[in-house]
Amino acid sequence: MRFLRRFQRGELRLTRIEAFSDGVFAIVVTLLVLELKVPELHDHGSASELGAHLLELFPKFLSWLISFVIVCKFWLNHHHILGLARHADYAMVWLNSIFLMFQSFVPFPTAMMGEYPTNPVAVTGFGVVMAFNTLLFVALQAYILRNLLKPELAGTQDPHFVRKSFVGVGSYLLGAAAAWFSVHLAFALYMLTPLFFIVPPASPAEKAGEATEEA
Amino acid sequence: MRFLRRFQRGELRLTRIEAFSDGVFAIVVTLLVLELKVPELHDHGSASELGAHLLELFPKFLSWLISFVIVCKFWLNHHHILGLARHADYAMVWLNSIFLMFQSFVPFPTAMMGEYPTNPVAVTGFGVVMAFNTLLFVALQAYILRNLLKPELAGTQDPHFVRKSFVGVGSYLLGAAAAWFSVHLAFALYMLTPLFFIVPPASPAEKAGEATEEA
Amino acid sequence: MRFLRRFQRGELRLTRIEAFSDGVFAIVVTLLVLELKVPELHDHGSASELGAHLLELFPKFLSWLISFVIVCKFWLNHHHILGLARHADYAMVWLNSIFLMFQSFVPFPTAMMGEYPTNPVAVTGFGVVMAFNTLLFVALQAYILRNLLKPELAGTQDPHFVRKSFVGVGSYLLGAAAAWFSVHLAFALYMLTPLFFIVPPASPAEKAGEATEEA
Amino acid sequence: MRFLRRFQRGELRLTRIEAFSDGVFAIVVTLLVLELKVPELHDHGSASELGAHLLELFPKFLSWLISFVIVCKFWLNHHHILGLARHADYAMVWLNSIFLMFQSFVPFPTAMMGEYPTNPVAVTGFGVVMAFNTLLFVALQAYILRNLLKPELAGTQDPHFVRKSFVGVGSYLLGAAAAWFSVHLAFALYMLTPLFFIVPPASPAEKAGEATEEA
Repeated sequence: MRFLRRFQRGELRLTRIEAFSDGVFAIVVTLLVLELKVPELHDHGSASELGAHLLELFPKFLSWLISFVIVCKFWLNHHHILGLARHADYAMVWLNSIFLMFQSFVPFPTAMMGEYPTNPVAVTGFGVVMAFNTLLFVALQAYILRNLLKPELAGTQDPHFVRKSFVGVGSYLLGAAAAWFSVHLAFALYMLTPLFFIVPPASPAEKAGEATEEA
Repeated sequence: MRFLRRFQRGELRLTRIEAFSDGVFAIVVTLLVLELKVPELHDHGSASELGAHLLELFPKFLSWLISFVIVCKFWLNHHHILGLARHADYAMVWLNSIFLMFQSFVPFPTAMMGEYPTNPVAVTGFGVVMAFNTLLFVALQAYILRNLLKPELAGTQDPHFVRKSFVGVGSYLLGAAAAWFSVHLAFALYMLTPLFFIVPPASPAEKAGEATEEA
Repeated sequence: MRFLRRFQRGELRLTRIEAFSDGVFAIVVTLLVLELKVPELHDHGSASELGAHLLELFPKFLSWLISFVIVCKFWLNHHHILGLARHADYAMVWLNSIFLMFQSFVPFPTAMMGEYPTNPVAVTGFGVVMAFNTLLFVALQAYILRNLLKPELAGTQDPHFVRKSFVGVGSYLLGAAAAWFSVHLAFALYMLTPLFFIVPPASPAEKAGEATEEA
Repeated sequence: MRFLRRFQRGELRLTRIEAFSDGVFAIVVTLLVLELKVPELHDHGSASELGAHLLELFPKFLSWLISFVIVCKFWLNHHHILGLARHADYAMVWLNSIFLMFQSFVPFPTAMMGEYPTNPVAVTGFGVVMAFNTLLFVALQAYILRNLLKPELAGTQDPHFVRKSFVGVGSYLLGAAAAWFSVHLAFALYMLTPLFFIVPPASPAEKAGEATEEA
């Protein structure tokens, strides 16, 4: 207990945590492109040979695009949730670090899926890693909402928020399962899932505002 | 409609968007150099062999230089346009993310053009990617000017700004077309295009000031 | 003497030192994953072949995980100690730069240990580099506590703090020695050591507070 | 003239320029380590084989160390000089970008010198690139001191500052020339040169203060 309490100590400024996190996010999205290797040609000047090789790279382009959108979505929601915290404590720093650890892992399953788009292990692996990343984000989010929420925001957050986040976990796992029947279906699920979370949830107040506007 | 309206929600601080963007820009320009691989020598101590190999790297150096200037130019104009916004909303964050996605893509066509400088597909590809990047930047810029302009700047911006930006799109596409006749002409066009945008546009007020000074 | 005194000159803002350091930390943790290379398959679609290759990557995954936790721990303690400084001088900047130099070195011993987990030189090397990194951090910390501590924090710091940090140095060196008898023991020691420093030390005041709560 | 005047326009906040620059510096120093490749072993478990290969990497370690110290020195002096500016204009942004371009180039000559430490072209190349980087920094520095100096600092800067910076240019070029007679001498000159600039110059006021203390 004494050990656990140590983690709730510390009033860390959020600025450096954000700077460190932004650095990791920025590097992850930029490293993704390193997997796109320039194809080797027999005839350096041949347009048709290079064109054919670029078409073969299509699964890599697609994996890169899917991962980029997913990481940006995580970045945006990370931005949103850290904006709700009044400060950080050590537990939050470590939840954040573990989340970032598996964000920085993303280039590996992305490269694997891009290299072997018809291999169910590769396509499943991508979904499992993304589901695990979502879980880690949910944990960070739940901890902030319960322990570090700015006092003036108390009661404005959707109480079902954390539960809703499991939709993402489920959807990535569904894609991971689908990979064993149809990799195309898995790719489609991976592309669709981030779209549900492309905008952070509105607070009940914002929702009420929207409903009024619409009426 | 309700879905689209969700994107106009959110009042995000610009600081983290700038930090994330600066991170991506900084990594992109620095990764460009990774394409310059140390040549392999038979005689490790031979000055003439290494010298000859370095000369062969000239197209790679040139591609690196052109890309570096273009990305710096995007960074400067990005800096300028974000300075005009009063805050960010989700639509802007996503326009920005998609723009950054294709900025982070730049090392790939740069490497391809450096590797195969006589291949029309490689040289065309570079121009098409740059034209597309310019289009994405124009979209971000137009959105900010229309929806997020600081109230005190209303009316100070050149109304033809967005239209003028299409000059860049056209010039890169001209280079991309030229690549099929003369790769040298294409390289020249790619080098010249960023020079037109090397300085963000003056506001009408600044222009009036300049005219006065000159008179 | 005059030369040494020049280093105590300068009142540098901590913001850029933190930004530079955060950049290095973020890149180091993200580069670690580049060592995880996608395995080459004979049969691109074979799930069992890819699965078997992924299992072989286990030592690399483990090395990556250990290094990630260690670097995050350094980042957190770096964050803590810089928060105690009132400003920076040139001596601190250089102690910080040398510390960052060997942080940025971490991917090399990590890759080596991941590649040759049964080779005592590789496993020893990892421990020696981590012990050296800890020493460099202790030097930075001691300098800040003695010369740059914020006046309002005088007397609140644990006077045995620096001495305690040598526990980490000793523990990594123990792991490095153990590698010659049992690499498994070395791995275990490397995993356990950062856990002792996973939370920066409490000030005596905080400790008194905890004791009271517990009573 | 009108074209040149456009560059003196713009009052850019220094924060994003610093963030972009810090990002580039941080990535450059961290990328340097990527040149240290894990050696390939015939007998994965052989301590003596790995030990022998690590000794062969000594020139690479040395090149890495020299480059790291040089880039950190540039970072510190960059930090110092930007602290003297009241804001940025477009000319400064471009001088800064071109300086950063050749900072980001540093990993290439570093890798080349580490790979071929006995090849005069490789060792000369390193010195020429560093001399050129120093020149670019002098240009940036001279521009800031002449055009953007904070009003309250007028007259406090050493008027011979820019001239003194050419010592660095000369010293790197001397090393570059020495490489044709003795690469060991060249390495020694490259190691010594940054030490002269390891601390930014004192203002005359600070110097007077030191003299008083010493008396």
